[in-house]
Amino acid sequence: MSQVVTFGEVMLRLATPGFTRYQQATHLELTYGGGEANVAVSLANFGVDAAFVTRLPKNDIAERAIAELRGLGVKTGFIARGGERMGIYFLESGASQRASKVTYDRAHSAIAEIQPGMVEWKQIFAGAQWFHWTGITPALSDSAAATVREACEAAKAAGVTISTDLNYRKKLWSREKAGQVMGDLMEFVDVCIANEEDAESVFGIKGAHVESGVIEKDVYIDVARQLAEKFSFKQVAITLRESLSASRNGWSAMLYQGGDSYFSKRYDITIVDRVGAGDSFGAGLIYAALKGLEPQAALEWAVAASCLKHSIPGDYNRVTVSEVEALAGGDASGRVQR
Amino acid sequence: MSQVVTFGEVMLRLATPGFTRYQQATHLELTYGGGEANVAVSLANFGVDAAFVTRLPKNDIAERAIAELRGLGVKTGFIARGGERMGIYFLESGASQRASKVTYDRAHSAIAEIQPGMVEWKQIFAGAQWFHWTGITPALSDSAAATVREACEAAKAAGVTISTDLNYRKKLWSREKAGQVMGDLMEFVDVCIANEEDAESVFGIKGAHVESGVIEKDVYIDVARQLAEKFSFKQVAITLRESLSASRNGWSAMLYQGGDSYFSKRYDITIVDRVGAGDSFGAGLIYAALKGLEPQAALEWAVAASCLKHSIPGDYNRVTVSEVEALAGGDASGRVQR
Amino acid sequence: MSQVVTFGEVMLRLATPGFTRYQQATHLELTYGGGEANVAVSLANFGVDAAFVTRLPKNDIAERAIAELRGLGVKTGFIARGGERMGIYFLESGASQRASKVTYDRAHSAIAEIQPGMVEWKQIFAGAQWFHWTGITPALSDSAAATVREACEAAKAAGVTISTDLNYRKKLWSREKAGQVMGDLMEFVDVCIANEEDAESVFGIKGAHVESGVIEKDVYIDVARQLAEKFSFKQVAITLRESLSASRNGWSAMLYQGGDSYFSKRYDITIVDRVGAGDSFGAGLIYAALKGLEPQAALEWAVAASCLKHSIPGDYNRVTVSEVEALAGGDASGRVQR
Amino acid sequence: MSQVVTFGEVMLRLATPGFTRYQQATHLELTYGGGEANVAVSLANFGVDAAFVTRLPKNDIAERAIAELRGLGVKTGFIARGGERMGIYFLESGASQRASKVTYDRAHSAIAEIQPGMVEWKQIFAGAQWFHWTGITPALSDSAAATVREACEAAKAAGVTISTDLNYRKKLWSREKAGQVMGDLMEFVDVCIANEEDAESVFGIKGAHVESGVIEKDVYIDVARQLAEKFSFKQVAITLRESLSASRNGWSAMLYQGGDSYFSKRYDITIVDRVGAGDSFGAGLIYAALKGLEPQAALEWAVAASCLKHSIPGDYNRVTVSEVEALAGGDASGRVQR
Amino acid sequence: MSQVVTFGEVMLRLATPGFTRYQQATHLELTYGGGEANVAVSLANFGVDAAFVTRLPKNDIAERAIAELRGLGVKTGFIARGGERMGIYFLESGASQRASKVTYDRAHSAIAEIQPGMVEWKQIFAGAQWFHWTGITPALSDSAAATVREACEAAKAAGVTISTDLNYRKKLWSREKAGQVMGDLMEFVDVCIANEEDAESVFGIKGAHVESGVIEKDVYIDVARQLAEKFSFKQVAITLRESLSASRNGWSAMLYQGGDSYFSKRYDITIVDRVGAGDSFGAGLIYAALKGLEPQAALEWAVAASCLKHSIPGDYNRVTVSEVEALAGGDASGRVQR
Amino acid sequence: MSQVVTFGEVMLRLATPGFTRYQQATHLELTYGGGEANVAVSLANFGVDAAFVTRLPKNDIAERAIAELRGLGVKTGFIARGGERMGIYFLESGASQRASKVTYDRAHSAIAEIQPGMVEWKQIFAGAQWFHWTGITPALSDSAAATVREACEAAKAAGVTISTDLNYRKKLWSREKAGQVMGDLMEFVDVCIANEEDAESVFGIKGAHVESGVIEKDVYIDVARQLAEKFSFKQVAITLRESLSASRNGWSAMLYQGGDSYFSKRYDITIVDRVGAGDSFGAGLIYAALKGLEPQAALEWAVAASCLKHSIPGDYNRVTVSEVEALAGGDASGRVQR
Repeated sequence: MSQVVTFGEVMLRLATPGFTRYQQATHLELTYGGGEANVAVSLANFGVDAAFVTRLPKNDIAERAIAELRGLGVKTGFIARGGERMGIYFLESGASQRASKVTYDRAHSAIAEIQPGMVEWKQIFAGAQWFHWTGITPALSDSAAATVREACEAAKAAGVTISTDLNYRKKLWSREKAGQVMGDLMEFVDVCIANEEDAESVFGIKGAHVESGVIEKDVYIDVARQLAEKFSFKQVAITLRESLSASRNGWSAMLYQGGDSYFSKRYDITIVDRVGAGDSFGAGLIYAALKGLEPQAALEWAVAASCLKHSIPGDYNRVTVSEVEALAGGDASGRVQR
Repeated sequence: MSQVVTFGEVMLRLATPGFTRYQQATHLELTYGGGEANVAVSLANFGVDAAFVTRLPKNDIAERAIAELRGLGVKTGFIARGGERMGIYFLESGASQRASKVTYDRAHSAIAEIQPGMVEWKQIFAGAQWFHWTGITPALSDSAAATVREACEAAKAAGVTISTDLNYRKKLWSREKAGQVMGDLMEFVDVCIANEEDAESVFGIKGAHVESGVIEKDVYIDVARQLAEKFSFKQVAITLRESLSASRNGWSAMLYQGGDSYFSKRYDITIVDRVGAGDSFGAGLIYAALKGLEPQAALEWAVAASCLKHSIPGDYNRVTVSEVEALAGGDASGRVQR
Repeated sequence: MSQVVTFGEVMLRLATPGFTRYQQATHLELTYGGGEANVAVSLANFGVDAAFVTRLPKNDIAERAIAELRGLGVKTGFIARGGERMGIYFLESGASQRASKVTYDRAHSAIAEIQPGMVEWKQIFAGAQWFHWTGITPALSDSAAATVREACEAAKAAGVTISTDLNYRKKLWSREKAGQVMGDLMEFVDVCIANEEDAESVFGIKGAHVESGVIEKDVYIDVARQLAEKFSFKQVAITLRESLSASRNGWSAMLYQGGDSYFSKRYDITIVDRVGAGDSFGAGLIYAALKGLEPQAALEWAVAASCLKHSIPGDYNRVTVSEVEALAGGDASGRVQR
Repeated sequence: MSQVVTFGEVMLRLATPGFTRYQQATHLELTYGGGEANVAVSLANFGVDAAFVTRLPKNDIAERAIAELRGLGVKTGFIARGGERMGIYFLESGASQRASKVTYDRAHSAIAEIQPGMVEWKQIFAGAQWFHWTGITPALSDSAAATVREACEAAKAAGVTISTDLNYRKKLWSREKAGQVMGDLMEFVDVCIANEEDAESVFGIKGAHVESGVIEKDVYIDVARQLAEKFSFKQVAITLRESLSASRNGWSAMLYQGGDSYFSKRYDITIVDRVGAGDSFGAGLIYAALKGLEPQAALEWAVAASCLKHSIPGDYNRVTVSEVEALAGGDASGRVQR
Repeated sequence: MSQVVTFGEVMLRLATPGFTRYQQATHLELTYGGGEANVAVSLANFGVDAAFVTRLPKNDIAERAIAELRGLGVKTGFIARGGERMGIYFLESGASQRASKVTYDRAHSAIAEIQPGMVEWKQIFAGAQWFHWTGITPALSDSAAATVREACEAAKAAGVTISTDLNYRKKLWSREKAGQVMGDLMEFVDVCIANEEDAESVFGIKGAHVESGVIEKDVYIDVARQLAEKFSFKQVAITLRESLSASRNGWSAMLYQGGDSYFSKRYDITIVDRVGAGDSFGAGLIYAALKGLEPQAALEWAVAASCLKHSIPGDYNRVTVSEVEALAGGDASGRVQR
Repeated sequence: MSQVVTFGEVMLRLATPGFTRYQQATHLELTYGGGEANVAVSLANFGVDAAFVTRLPKNDIAERAIAELRGLGVKTGFIARGGERMGIYFLESGASQRASKVTYDRAHSAIAEIQPGMVEWKQIFAGAQWFHWTGITPALSDSAAATVREACEAAKAAGVTISTDLNYRKKLWSREKAGQVMGDLMEFVDVCIANEEDAESVFGIKGAHVESGVIEKDVYIDVARQLAEKFSFKQVAITLRESLSASRNGWSAMLYQGGDSYFSKRYDITIVDRVGAGDSFGAGLIYAALKGLEPQAALEWAVAASCLKHSIPGDYNRVTVSEVEALAGGDASGRVQR
């Protein structure tokens, strides 16, 4: 009976140490991660009672993923067990002008082979407030997409708010397939999260360019407005990443809600690990919603939370409420805390 | 135009460091290995012109496997490229009474999906002297088994000697299936290598127990004799491992040739890494054959080579001819070489 | 509402890597451990619902200890929070004739400063079956000893079986003080666990030496009998360590129950990490009792479990029921499990 | 008979590797550090004959601290031995907007329990030129404060120049207590060093804000002037850190001497490890004084020395005179030195 | 019969980990590198058939250098074997205002003791298109310089294009000696590569300063023009490094060809490892020449390739053609590649 | 004015980690060592005032060797500075039947190029009691041998006892050269230390084989007697290593003094690092002599000290007097010391 439930794939993450390329590494750093698991961990770190649902095989590799989540405070009791393998992704950390590189080995995973009926959704959503999934889950397979739909129906029936992060992954499906499958699922969604490119990749929605003097903010407002109108979203949030290099990014976000748009402050980030940053934004937004923060405050909270994620190795955002509050409250000085 | 050709699967090997269990490790040591690749590397270290044939996808994980083999002196020019992934195995190093534990994630590999016709066997065997494969390759899939047959036919046509290591893997196939597929392939085989259990697992051949006073040596002689007679092998070699614990093993072998049997000296081994030891024995036997050593000397050479393998981390046996000669020649003192 | 409850100190364990001495190490390996926490973890690994009770301050060092225990499946909800610090121990791993060396920095810990009334014992023992503590806990301070008494009274009132491991630590208290405090607490104890020296150190009980032909087994039987008779224990178990060197130990145990004595098989162990081995024996004995095993089988189970502990880095015994069963069932070969 | 003597606490420093949070680290990097020890090491690296005085227990942890200082060239012969433990601090290195975090475990240390009379101050100061301590030492305990007074009296009697770094630590004492204790000790001090906040934290001294057009430099001049006048300091030096983020800082300083004020050049620093930077500034200032540098040159030297400290892991500033001279002389290019 | 041949010294490179100073490091990272080997590796990574020629002793240290090069795809069959040792260089990675520091231990190396006649140049250059060497090789010894001349004569005789990188090393020879020896060798050179300082260090060529309004670009054009005219080079390329700090550099280059000059775009680089960057520029230029790129495109290609080198640990530039093309084509965003 | 002075070469020691071969290692563990430095460190650890004399260049590599010795308590003030490089040795740790392998790179070192007159022997030996050197020092070069003679003359003049360890190294000189140079130097020597092979290698002295029933002990007694008589040694000590494998050795020693012979107890050793074990035996013998122990006790002390060395990584024997006393006193159990 958790407050928030997330559903998706958690993968074994094998990252090269330091800035070594895969061809140089003699060991790989072992952690786990995946969009929806990342959101659950982030919320658990904030003290929210969060459950993560997936399907995992019965082997050491998967047992550890579960043990780690449990240690981080995430409820793992509804994870379906079965299948042959869990997905793996290899991460090579970039630097300066060299981009980070992800090599996936996720086909044939237990979650890709999930079937509707394998998860006890009714029991899971009893008493829950929020359900979060991302565009990666339905992209894994048709049966995974069907299971997302099954989950959404159960969540709606239980009166649970549903958020999704579009999270388009071109190696998993085409834009056409994504648009069709996601389009069908949007009817359940209350809160839609996206990055600068997702709306166009998935739904073909580009911001309108005013004849002259258009400012970029207007473009994003337009995109958010189109999304909100097309799918009747209550909130649309868009993260805005300025990729100056693999070592340095600008980071901010916008929120569209009730016809109004809000823009957060912008952070100039020295990157330690940016994988999972979008997920930590989503978790921040959900947390803010659960706490009933006003739109601008909610947005600042989510951006501050995800700003901090960039400083932490691994997919998971290991920060506390007080750390996010301090940054959202204005202290970005990074002074030593004694 | 290599002297020796081996064919099979090379996997990404991810081992926990020290004696940590998988649940404890925060990084995994990255190397590569697989029965037939191990034999090719061992031979290349001995100065033999060895080629390894397999099928690998086009991604960083596979490129590195190839680069490493090339660096070790193995010819990689005939490796077929294609497929989606390469196999992975996770290794947890045991100690004392705790066994080492291997978790495979090798399904759907490029080599399991190989098809006859993908490899240019005729070109490969032109000028070659020896072809080696193990019972793992046909166990990967029916099409892999068919490709082994294709290779054997080409090798035989080119007058190449063929050796196989029975290498039974119960997670890949049943005893029944193994017996049937391997039985059909034995017609091509000149030299058969096995461990103490393989002959029974694959072909149901147990040594005869004389009513009274039977000595164990006789059992192995009987097994070897049965194998040799059933399949017309020129040589049968059986490695004899005494598993005192995960840290300490006795190690020796026997050779059956021309109706005579030979037993090697026995080594008392402190184990660093015993994975690949059987393969290093096979490589030693092939090297001895190429050098024309007499049976007892050949056997001692192969056992000394594989004894040394136990002291070296990773699947590959990184020893030189002079190091094997010194040990086979009697210096097992381990005194510092200055 | 856990089946088994343990109570004591968990410390930050900082160990030098490899066989380096403290003066050489440039990093220390960070784990946690302590007698009663070790027992709880071991039981949780066996699938038992185990809770660990202690007192810990509110800081990162303690939060991690809790998160780790939770990840390992131990219930941590009844840990009292407060105090200034948690205990630390520095471990230098010995080898060959050089002994391992423990340097404690545990004074002023939160658990040493615990007071009766800080833990909700009644709630904890509701529905529980077993309560385990060791002689270290009352040695920490008078108030800790008083809290052990408080716990024992609550456990008895709830009909819970109580086991204790004498675990004498000469740096914490004198033999006199130990004898007095422990003597008073023994009235609650059903199962008493000790190593070869504890009975003499704490209670001055030495085995009787028969005039001639005495065999050592008789000595331990005599010690166990004296203990059992003096304190009306239902079971007395004594671990028997033969310290051949810091790298190699003989390991077995004896059990005295209902006037009969049982001796286990003896293992010849190559040591990876022997800290916590006694605790893993205790956990094995508790598990066997919960499963209703017969005395000889229970003893073999506990010895096999603790034999395996010696092969695992860290205080915690990370083995499964099936692994213990395999060893107790006779397979000590350490053969690779594929 | 060292030229410079420093007195205070040296702690075991246990830092998480890379940018990992404490909850993620599986090992901690072991070094030592503390304000006054840092100053002594820095001076020894500059070739100054420097002695460090403290009180340490007799155990491995403390022996290593001493051995390390001795290896670095610091005289350790006057360290008092006794007590139960040495202080520890855990360091989590921040990055970008995430601040570094220090968790202290320093209560009950040997130096906190020091008593006047335990150190042979008269012998120590015979022939010495300079005595340095920081506001941390009297904050440790009343007896430590009394020992600072004892030391100051002995130093004054021996005609030794005394410098102090205010170094306010809010976890050790309140502003009120600090103001009172430090205020009493200032009568001995010739040179006062502080960061931007110390003067206000300890003595409540804020810079005056001129009605209009006030520039920040004037604020610091005013603070320094007030300090100098109130306590008759010969020199007041204030380090000026611009905390842009945990990864990037601006760094400069000002010096107030003889009624005149001097400002250094400003460095834009990419941070490797900023702990101990203030101490390295103090050491630079002392070195410059011993060498008789003019105020502006002395300030530039101290700022260059402490700028370099930010690039070096650990508390200690491991740079040579020629390296500081090169930077103070204008080469901040970081070009490879071949 | 390789397309490109390089000749020079490859050294064992022992680098301190992270940003530790040599005095702190407890292990050194082992790789290999050297100007001409770096060029060969870079070209092999681009798919060019490249051979590296040097002289190395027969020991493990040298065998590994060869094995590594072979693994990277470089042809090593013409390496002369003999001599007593191979050169070593110790590297301490700088950060911020602290410069990286190289300590050489390269005297008496096998390559320094090479003699004309030891290498089969005629065979090597048969069918080759390009020969590259740097100013380091003739600086090693008189006999090494004589061997460079011997190589150049053989290359010219075979119609091979010759490029050289001036690469002045003040620890190897004086400016006078360099100017004389290099001056004599320039008659063979078609393409001359230099950094901002080499031309003056080796040949005393400074750019003319126009009376007023001179811009720096003109200075480099003037230097390149003087070089080209004096030695009849077909191309002169000069790399332009702005050393903002050891952590951040500006990076661009200019090319002078056929009387025209070209300037590349400028990259703002966060440095991971800048050793070997100049060599990677040279390799880029050679690749571009082999591909027949136009001057501006060739220059951009070489600068993009060498920009990426700064992000990769070790001397070798481990990037692919497609990665360079992406950057040269304008994508410097460092976005994660999934 | 140290009690004991040793003179010889200290080298940079670069060892592969774990049991990796040089071809596998990606980092090398950095320590320092050398016969005479090892003896000085061992004595300093025992609390003896020991000085080490050598010649070292002025670079980072050498500075660290000195700083490390100073930290370990060895006096380094008489080390001559000059020359171009310090010697290096690469160590590959063996295991089981694979021997450890040392690759030297020590030619042209500062100590090999030492000349008589570079060291202030008179000042060094004023007040000293003992001078120790080994057969490695005169083997480095003729001038090093001449400097040993110079040192011996000064020591004798100052009434200092002289010990030498024959330490034959076949890669440094031939048996003939060694016999001649060492033979000339023996006139100064009071105490001669050797391993089982040195006496024959250097002086051609083999033990007499009695016709029948000869026991091995008699052989060593005979060797020692011959040595003592030929060179008028007061003591001859021979270490007796049984090289069962690279992982396990038997270790004992014999002492011949005043016509009597003594044999120590024998230890069965699990090897961590056996380099420097002979040196630690010499240090033990010197310590025992300084303490005036009786022959049998002195021998047991030296053997216990050197037994412990085998358990410690690096050349240096980091054990205390109390640890040696415990082992010499009979406790070889390796039980955890809490």
